[in-house]
Amino acid sequence: MTLSPTPRSTIKRGRNRAVTEREALHAVLDAALVCHLAVVVDDAPLVLPTGYGRDGDTLYLHGSTGARSLRTAATGVPVCVGVTILDGVVYARSVFDHSMNYRAAVVHGTAVPVTDDDAKMHGLRVITEHIAPGSWDYARLPTPKEMAATAVLSLDLTEASVKIRSGPPGDEEDDVAANERWAGVLPVRTVWGEPESDPSLVGEWDVPPHVTARR
Amino acid sequence: MTLSPTPRSTIKRGRNRAVTEREALHAVLDAALVCHLAVVVDDAPLVLPTGYGRDGDTLYLHGSTGARSLRTAATGVPVCVGVTILDGVVYARSVFDHSMNYRAAVVHGTAVPVTDDDAKMHGLRVITEHIAPGSWDYARLPTPKEMAATAVLSLDLTEASVKIRSGPPGDEEDDVAANERWAGVLPVRTVWGEPESDPSLVGEWDVPPHVTARR
Repeated sequence: MTLSPTPRSTIKRGRNRAVTEREALHAVLDAALVCHLAVVVDDAPLVLPTGYGRDGDTLYLHGSTGARSLRTAATGVPVCVGVTILDGVVYARSVFDHSMNYRAAVVHGTAVPVTDDDAKMHGLRVITEHIAPGSWDYARLPTPKEMAATAVLSLDLTEASVKIRSGPPGDEEDDVAANERWAGVLPVRTVWGEPESDPSLVGEWDVPPHVTARR
Repeated sequence: MTLSPTPRSTIKRGRNRAVTEREALHAVLDAALVCHLAVVVDDAPLVLPTGYGRDGDTLYLHGSTGARSLRTAATGVPVCVGVTILDGVVYARSVFDHSMNYRAAVVHGTAVPVTDDDAKMHGLRVITEHIAPGSWDYARLPTPKEMAATAVLSLDLTEASVKIRSGPPGDEEDDVAANERWAGVLPVRTVWGEPESDPSLVGEWDVPPHVTARR
């Protein structure tokens, strides 16, 4: 299935940067860790960073049951989710053509609260395995009380768009021909640091493989 | 001036993570490169990645004059800007206490189009120097035609909140006492890669100091 089936999810600016393959959407969502969830509260937009995970064409979002954005999103109102990965700063010969290399996904839809016990546990597993792969099987699973304190929402990925910019600057011909200024890309990468063990661990501990394997 | 002067910018969840100093807001905004700008379009939220820069307590946003989010924001409607820096994945002993270390700023307000020539040039300079420090003096400055094709908005930073999580997991006492599972933090860092010169440059070029100095 291709993306952009509705007017609001059809990219109007920079069409050459729009990517219509569903695989590209999945790849962007899988590559980032935090999304920005936007809802409308009292006629004003509210955007907050939120943890998520993807299973097929379902995006799971979670947070405290007390979080305003989650509470609002759970009432069946329209939501918008943005996920952006910055890949580089594009230094052009002109200020105007300066840009950034990035991969960005925007999803529109109505979030549905996941309340069925098994479905909620599944959603939490998907989110946990996205943020911390291997933790679901390693860590202590949620108690009923912890489950009750966690809100899980599902959002269908049908209405979404992906925009990707990569490569060198797109300077004007005259600026390129003049050859008077350097131009290029300074790449940005997100890397894992050295794992930091919790000081409250007692005794000697090796960092488990599901954490070390990530680096 | 402290932050959080209004109900919607007062953090209700995780109050211990809320930071009320204005300097902390500035630091978060200065440390990131991309913000998520949310507006309301046809009663639904729309969130899009946007370039920005800060000058004192003014946030400048820019984009194409044709961009829907910028066009909507420029009509004096409420906007919300989110900036999030991920610092690490927090591996707890329990799935429930898994978390992320992050620095996040949320700004509420009404964006004002910057139309005066000098003010717009100033805003563009602030944004350019945020994204690519040194480029304003190095690159070719905007022509009147390029200025006309660029929308610059200003957003007052009065109504904003900052939330920061850092440090080890906050596991339950029983889980810590059991000492049966590793817990800790896997830090996330954003680093610059090796500059990539534009293949369309003619002859030998050294990468200029304002780019190399960034690494």
